[in-house]
Amino acid sequence: METLLLSIKDVEEALAMEEVIHAVEEGYIAYHEGKVQQPEIVSIEMPQNNGETDIKSCYNQLNERISVKIASGFYDNGKKNDLPTMIGTILLFDGKSGAPLCVMDGSLITGIRTGAAGAISSKLLARKNSKTVAVFGTGGQARMQIYGLCQVMDIEEVRVYGEHRNGLLKYKEDVEANTKVNVILCETPEMAMQDADIAISTTPSKKYFIERSWVRPGLHIVAVGADMAGKNEWDPKIFQGSKIVNDSIAQCVSRGETRNAIVAGVIRENDIYAEIGELLAGEKPLRVSEDEITIFDTTGMGIQDNVTAMIVYEAAKKRGLGSYFEFI
Amino acid sequence: METLLLSIKDVEEALAMEEVIHAVEEGYIAYHEGKVQQPEIVSIEMPQNNGETDIKSCYNQLNERISVKIASGFYDNGKKNDLPTMIGTILLFDGKSGAPLCVMDGSLITGIRTGAAGAISSKLLARKNSKTVAVFGTGGQARMQIYGLCQVMDIEEVRVYGEHRNGLLKYKEDVEANTKVNVILCETPEMAMQDADIAISTTPSKKYFIERSWVRPGLHIVAVGADMAGKNEWDPKIFQGSKIVNDSIAQCVSRGETRNAIVAGVIRENDIYAEIGELLAGEKPLRVSEDEITIFDTTGMGIQDNVTAMIVYEAAKKRGLGSYFEFI
Repeated sequence: METLLLSIKDVEEALAMEEVIHAVEEGYIAYHEGKVQQPEIVSIEMPQNNGETDIKSCYNQLNERISVKIASGFYDNGKKNDLPTMIGTILLFDGKSGAPLCVMDGSLITGIRTGAAGAISSKLLARKNSKTVAVFGTGGQARMQIYGLCQVMDIEEVRVYGEHRNGLLKYKEDVEANTKVNVILCETPEMAMQDADIAISTTPSKKYFIERSWVRPGLHIVAVGADMAGKNEWDPKIFQGSKIVNDSIAQCVSRGETRNAIVAGVIRENDIYAEIGELLAGEKPLRVSEDEITIFDTTGMGIQDNVTAMIVYEAAKKRGLGSYFEFI
Repeated sequence: METLLLSIKDVEEALAMEEVIHAVEEGYIAYHEGKVQQPEIVSIEMPQNNGETDIKSCYNQLNERISVKIASGFYDNGKKNDLPTMIGTILLFDGKSGAPLCVMDGSLITGIRTGAAGAISSKLLARKNSKTVAVFGTGGQARMQIYGLCQVMDIEEVRVYGEHRNGLLKYKEDVEANTKVNVILCETPEMAMQDADIAISTTPSKKYFIERSWVRPGLHIVAVGADMAGKNEWDPKIFQGSKIVNDSIAQCVSRGETRNAIVAGVIRENDIYAEIGELLAGEKPLRVSEDEITIFDTTGMGIQDNVTAMIVYEAAKKRGLGSYFEFI
């Protein structure tokens, strides 16, 4: 049988943020409805090489596909070789026969499906007239969050904070070229938070640098960076009294920003308001006042990879992208 | 960068049982010495399609490679399509950069590395003059166990029991064509056990069918079939007083034949004598008498896939097998 192979360029050609947002919404609902098997994330750590590899797998009853994503972060790449820091590979298998249907680059998919997640949360939870967004970090995910958000809201200003001047300049250039927003470079995290309606954190920080006193009423927070125990971007006290939504409660309490608030004793697991699939299914009220602080904590789910890889696979077949190889 | 792609035919060409036995021995020792990260096995079950998928991952410090094997068993394959029941895919990544080095068929590798495991255990634990082997099951693994064993001992007779007459006849034909052994077809499990020096079980049985009263002093047992909770081939009472060796104690007590003996209350985890890596490292005595009953319980480890896939990868590069594809 033939297995489809898709390079990063093929994937880029086949992907559209708008479709991904829609697919991820459906995936979140399927997960909430118990139609998804999503085993625990496998993590391998190689500190001697400043690297880590995660494996996220998923079986989606709705499309009857198994997805397996092997995603690595090797933080000396680029310096000691010419490889990107983040490398990912996604495999799709037929859930009726185990046949390997597709092997594709997974780097872009991780970026875009995470951007889609943030956008979905803002559509549901941010104030409707949100215009100003604080962004922490200047990497790929800091871009994707804005590309996603611009699909669902009329954003006018992005206030970005990052540690490196060159990164900030390049970020401004890219985001302004790809969207209609005006990007303001901020010298401190506090400056970025000024007038923010939505605040998105995408850094690998291990110690929080966003203070509670900078959070104004009505803010919607998208906490992306903390995706494993030991990472922390937000003062845990911000969780107190906020409406906390998780992509997966199981994952966020064990490896997300929510974990930090629980470990700090600020909240208990019971204080988490909902999983995002419950909100999408219309089972609980969304934001109930203009002053409420809402937090979406996302650690990234196999179901997001599953539905996004399926979009890519179907589009690539339709358009004749990629190559074929007979493994069996 | 280029990723090597290897089909099942390429893998077959690159593999030699003798080398695999040697590599698996080194892998077991590396695991015992703490040089291997082997996360928990991920299992996805699709009972509505009579199928299951396991993911075994491993990082081996010695070769600095990450291996990920996605192996499926869909038991209606062949009837409702023309695919094999067992399908596997193995990926190798560079543990220094996360780069995807190779995607290869993994079906043959699972078979051969498991055959190698059984052979290694017999070399260590069976009586030196073992000539007669009882085999339960007539599938690929029942063949591989004998192909492995014949590399390390002078076996004269295989007494095979299986449920289907055609399977038995085909087994005899294949094994006699590929080895010097004489294959005797047995109508009952008890007949297969007569005069056996070594007994190897490779069935998917969920209820034991090999009785304690058939086990004679000095037997070496290789328990392969039971690799997840709910599978059982041997009367748990056989474990009482036997020298029990596991590939991985963690895995065997949670999903191997050893688990059944613990659940039945016949032994406690403390009664397990050793992991096979300890024996290979020379840290504990092997068989101490001609009458001792020894049991090797193997559930299959990521490190076996890792070292076997590396042999294939290196041999394929040397011989120019396979194709290349640029994912990134």
